[in-house]
Amino acid sequence: MTPPPAYETLGERLAAIHDLVKVASLLAWDQQTIMPPLGSEVRAHQLATVGRLAHEQFVDDEIGSLLEELEPWAADQPYESDEASVVRMTRRDFDKAIRVPPSLTAEMSRAGSLSFGAWVEAKTKSDYGSFRPWLEQMIELKHRYVDCFPPAEDPYDILLDDFEPATETAQVREIFARLRENLVPLVEAAGSSATPRVTGRFAAAKQRELSLEIVRRFGYTDDAWRIDTAPHPFASSIGTHDIRITTREPEDSLDGLFATMHECGHGLYEHGVAPSLERTPLARGASLGLHESQSRLWENLVGRSRPFWSWFYPRLREVFSSELASVDEETWFRSINDVSPGLIRIEADEASYNLHIILRFELEQRIMAGLDLRELPEVWNGMMKEYLGVDVPDDAHGVLQDVHWSRGALGYFPTYSLGNVMSAQIWQRMREDVGDVDEQMARGEFGAIREWLRTHLHVHGRKFLPAETLERVVGGPIDPEPYLNYLQGKLAVA
Amino acid sequence: MTPPPAYETLGERLAAIHDLVKVASLLAWDQQTIMPPLGSEVRAHQLATVGRLAHEQFVDDEIGSLLEELEPWAADQPYESDEASVVRMTRRDFDKAIRVPPSLTAEMSRAGSLSFGAWVEAKTKSDYGSFRPWLEQMIELKHRYVDCFPPAEDPYDILLDDFEPATETAQVREIFARLRENLVPLVEAAGSSATPRVTGRFAAAKQRELSLEIVRRFGYTDDAWRIDTAPHPFASSIGTHDIRITTREPEDSLDGLFATMHECGHGLYEHGVAPSLERTPLARGASLGLHESQSRLWENLVGRSRPFWSWFYPRLREVFSSELASVDEETWFRSINDVSPGLIRIEADEASYNLHIILRFELEQRIMAGLDLRELPEVWNGMMKEYLGVDVPDDAHGVLQDVHWSRGALGYFPTYSLGNVMSAQIWQRMREDVGDVDEQMARGEFGAIREWLRTHLHVHGRKFLPAETLERVVGGPIDPEPYLNYLQGKLAVA
Repeated sequence: MTPPPAYETLGERLAAIHDLVKVASLLAWDQQTIMPPLGSEVRAHQLATVGRLAHEQFVDDEIGSLLEELEPWAADQPYESDEASVVRMTRRDFDKAIRVPPSLTAEMSRAGSLSFGAWVEAKTKSDYGSFRPWLEQMIELKHRYVDCFPPAEDPYDILLDDFEPATETAQVREIFARLRENLVPLVEAAGSSATPRVTGRFAAAKQRELSLEIVRRFGYTDDAWRIDTAPHPFASSIGTHDIRITTREPEDSLDGLFATMHECGHGLYEHGVAPSLERTPLARGASLGLHESQSRLWENLVGRSRPFWSWFYPRLREVFSSELASVDEETWFRSINDVSPGLIRIEADEASYNLHIILRFELEQRIMAGLDLRELPEVWNGMMKEYLGVDVPDDAHGVLQDVHWSRGALGYFPTYSLGNVMSAQIWQRMREDVGDVDEQMARGEFGAIREWLRTHLHVHGRKFLPAETLERVVGGPIDPEPYLNYLQGKLAVA
Repeated sequence: MTPPPAYETLGERLAAIHDLVKVASLLAWDQQTIMPPLGSEVRAHQLATVGRLAHEQFVDDEIGSLLEELEPWAADQPYESDEASVVRMTRRDFDKAIRVPPSLTAEMSRAGSLSFGAWVEAKTKSDYGSFRPWLEQMIELKHRYVDCFPPAEDPYDILLDDFEPATETAQVREIFARLRENLVPLVEAAGSSATPRVTGRFAAAKQRELSLEIVRRFGYTDDAWRIDTAPHPFASSIGTHDIRITTREPEDSLDGLFATMHECGHGLYEHGVAPSLERTPLARGASLGLHESQSRLWENLVGRSRPFWSWFYPRLREVFSSELASVDEETWFRSINDVSPGLIRIEADEASYNLHIILRFELEQRIMAGLDLRELPEVWNGMMKEYLGVDVPDDAHGVLQDVHWSRGALGYFPTYSLGNVMSAQIWQRMREDVGDVDEQMARGEFGAIREWLRTHLHVHGRKFLPAETLERVVGGPIDPEPYLNYLQGKLAVA
């Protein structure tokens, strides 16, 4: 099969746009890791220019004409072929992109920038009142954004689609209800027998050394990866062979090890995309949820497991011999798997984390349904009491804690828990295929796990919608039971 | 004076183009310093895409129309105003850019890429013959490039213009003839009394520490600069407040200190451009020659001077106490100012360096005049004997040593020596104004030197042509005598 000339033309246009998208990733990575601080003003302009050009090049009429010309041909190609997938997903992206007028995009970007600044200040002062007008404006813009699209069953579907394409709010609601009814009592019960966290002074350089020892076993290589420090760790791919993870190593805990494993999971997904998809719009993960399934899999299902630590704890204790002198492997294992409900999402344990997410997901729907934003802190605080049993002392530790809403990113939060749910489904399926996963991990071997994930999930990149992708990997739809079994099994033992 | 709306429109267009140019600088900086090696294939595409877009946006008809509309207004503005300068220099750039057909640009870029690869291989094997067909093709393309422009007095003027705008070959020939007649005997005489180089094992980390101590005194600050390692040191500005210098610290010498001072000089020029010129095409140095005048000034006129080392040698010896135990300040000073002719340009001392340049400048003219490229190595070797008294053992140490021609960069080499010449003129003028320069350097104070350079030269950026710029700084045209006096004075003392 030789693709028609129009396919080559489309490919060239999309490759150039992809280049710009990846260039923007590098600009952002650089800004958050190593840029001299006074570079920020000009950097904001550079990011805006590259983003604007990528958008302009994409919504060009020529892309539309090429798609129209190619669609009959693509319909005859195998569904899973690169070519059919490129045409299909580009059509989806294009139809979404041309619906939003550039003036609205510009207004959202400008308002988001100002609102972010207002949020930073409001959080410092713990003053929700000063942020509320900005939030009201962002929500108004979100409504205008939703109005650009044909009516959905639930308006929230449209917001969700930007992060977890073609996923129905109703389905997420069902999954989260099931999680909530199980996790609220589970977290409540566990919270009463909290294991103390392991504390001490852990030199950052030694943490980095250990992190690297671990992620090299996962698949990190010096010729295609970097690791750097950033205040809020993230993973970035500038190309499938230029993967940049970041971490932070506060010296009062060993949390940095888990941040590194988490970001490595994201990196492995991007790195494993098929070479034939490089410089196409499919050269990335299928959704934020599936991405999170990979980061959580390596952070939690691997990185908080007994076999993992039966391999690595002796090494950890060798490096931090005085700091961990009185901490045996069992104590360490319990401390890193401790469940104890708290105020702050990003500090939450594996189980109660989901309750933070469910709260936000439910609130976002109420906000879009017209909740009076003056009542937001009160509603937030009430839900925190109900779901997590905690009292919120002030807005900084409550409704103002997360950056997302200031930027207008509604629909983003649920992907974190969808990722958790899918991670357990994928893990279960992988164990069935690979066999002696625990034995391998206990020997520090992770190649078979990584290769299974690569050939079953990563190679596809964004060729399929998230539900299609998951179906290919686990043979069925999203299902919270494996995740609940995993958490319950773990907590029963711990 | 309020500029007309068309000026604002032009400014926006040029700012976005400037953003792309600077983004390309970041892509290149990243590639040469910290990118994982396997990122190179995708990076080449990213650089090509950004470069193509910057070019397309610039040669757009709208830029031409805006210039036409604005020129009558700009003619009424003060010549040195930002506005008149932006219009004037943009017209110059635009008229050049639209003369070269995109097909030729693409062909030069593709051929340059392949030719570069062929050069790398030929140099490794020291096999000029395998590189010659590529060089022939590059020269043929250079002729086609020259033919895009109205006939100049000398076709070489057109090549020179890309690096040293509006500079006549005839004038350079005259300056270089004067240098050559003085330097050939001077180098010959000095070569017979060579001072041994200081050698030892100098830990790279300690070199970096010392380099930073020095450049912080010159003007390097952590909030607007970075320093990293690169195999071929260079300076890059991503913005006037995001200056990135690179250096190398081979541990068998202290040459890295001079590389750092050199690149810091380039960085100070870019950093000192007036804030009002940020994101305009004038936010950079006026020419490669003037840029080199700044790097050489800090590397040589400051960094190889007696007062500088009377300040810093005690510190150097403190850090490398065992390595420099038997090297007193006088020996050190002589060793870093030693003149001894050699085969390789980039390893040459301050004086003989110019003879390497003059040779290349003369050869480039002969090549453009039709020299049979089969004879090139022989001609090269003959000139090396005549100018530097050295025998060339093979092409790798001869005609194949530099990358420039493989990329088609003819007209570039002379800017190095023009920079040397101008550095001495600027230095002389600065000393007259500042007064006790030697005393200040001997105290490790460089603020007055830097500020003089900033207010007299750097602030202008590229508002004026190089000759106009030099005229403003030193009150006259380019003149080799101060440089010859400087070298002769130094060698007479040493």
